[in-house]
Amino acid sequence: MEEFSSTLLENAVNELSRLPGIGRKTALRLALYILRRDEREANSLGQSIIDLRKGIKYCHICHNISETDTCPICADTRRDSTTICVVENVRDVLSIERTGRFTGLYHVLGGVISPIDGIGPDRLEIASLAQRVAEQDIREVILALSPTMEGDTTAYYIYRLLTGSADAKPTITRLARGVAVGNELEYTDELTLGRSIIDRRPFE
Amino acid sequence: MEEFSSTLLENAVNELSRLPGIGRKTALRLALYILRRDEREANSLGQSIIDLRKGIKYCHICHNISETDTCPICADTRRDSTTICVVENVRDVLSIERTGRFTGLYHVLGGVISPIDGIGPDRLEIASLAQRVAEQDIREVILALSPTMEGDTTAYYIYRLLTGSADAKPTITRLARGVAVGNELEYTDELTLGRSIIDRRPFE
Repeated sequence: MEEFSSTLLENAVNELSRLPGIGRKTALRLALYILRRDEREANSLGQSIIDLRKGIKYCHICHNISETDTCPICADTRRDSTTICVVENVRDVLSIERTGRFTGLYHVLGGVISPIDGIGPDRLEIASLAQRVAEQDIREVILALSPTMEGDTTAYYIYRLLTGSADAKPTITRLARGVAVGNELEYTDELTLGRSIIDRRPFE
Repeated sequence: MEEFSSTLLENAVNELSRLPGIGRKTALRLALYILRRDEREANSLGQSIIDLRKGIKYCHICHNISETDTCPICADTRRDSTTICVVENVRDVLSIERTGRFTGLYHVLGGVISPIDGIGPDRLEIASLAQRVAEQDIREVILALSPTMEGDTTAYYIYRLLTGSADAKPTITRLARGVAVGNELEYTDELTLGRSIIDRRPFE
């Protein structure tokens, strides 16, 4: 006999337990919760997952998640288009926006350089960043990456790339080390993160 | 500007954060994880949730989750049909099956009596239990409910109901108090739970 008396339940538990941080026990709990809700509610949850993956777009400029080709941040003419804040992922954009301390644009790398995980610069949106800097009037690039080994490596790689050419170079800054070393950026509280943007220092 | 730059993301986060134990931060993490996976994988997760709620059936005898009108346990003629183990929910059936110490049938109440939550005996599968006992050759009813206030109340209610009539009465037993008082049944380890089935005592 199988673990569950229903293959529908078995399927749902298998699928849910693939999500990060969700084991089989939690997956079963979630599946049984879904069973107790309206069919309409279960449909709406399932469909939102399908629609999310199917319909999502990324801004062609900064690679942030967007409904449109150009995201609302890049399209906002009140923002300072001469400053680009380089972040690892979409969560980091949300975190920095919540501080209310940054009025420039973003560039989402989609990860950090990590040889162990086989992630080299080619897998990230680094070439497109260099292109933005080369083609537009960018005065400052803030490297807002996590103060981890991978984040530091990525920041240094980008610093070398952007200062290597003979063209007019933007100032490259990094976040103030107000953020605790070794922690992921997204877990930093808003005050500290806001402070670290104000205190940003030249990249050296 | 909204919290997210995409209403698809907003929707998915809202839906996911309705699940028990999943806050908005975790929901966002799950949504962004889903975005990084294949479209096929996201579809398969979403569809499994929709199918689960839509296609699920309950056994018409014991009310366990089932693919068929009669669940595999009730349909298994090798099991002892004279013994019914009464449990609160489907998770408890799975927990007891995993101990490998029980060969009878089940009866899933779908909850326990809880006046605070407005759950009276009418909301539970108690009448159908009394009917099974009245119409079939049932020699023993094991009340395998959590040793909590609500579980004890429900057990006592069923005990009174089943022993109140003038007909031939089954023996009513309860789980040995090997399970720690105040804990939910589903968190009990398999050895202790198996032991508590072997050590079951007459209900008094």
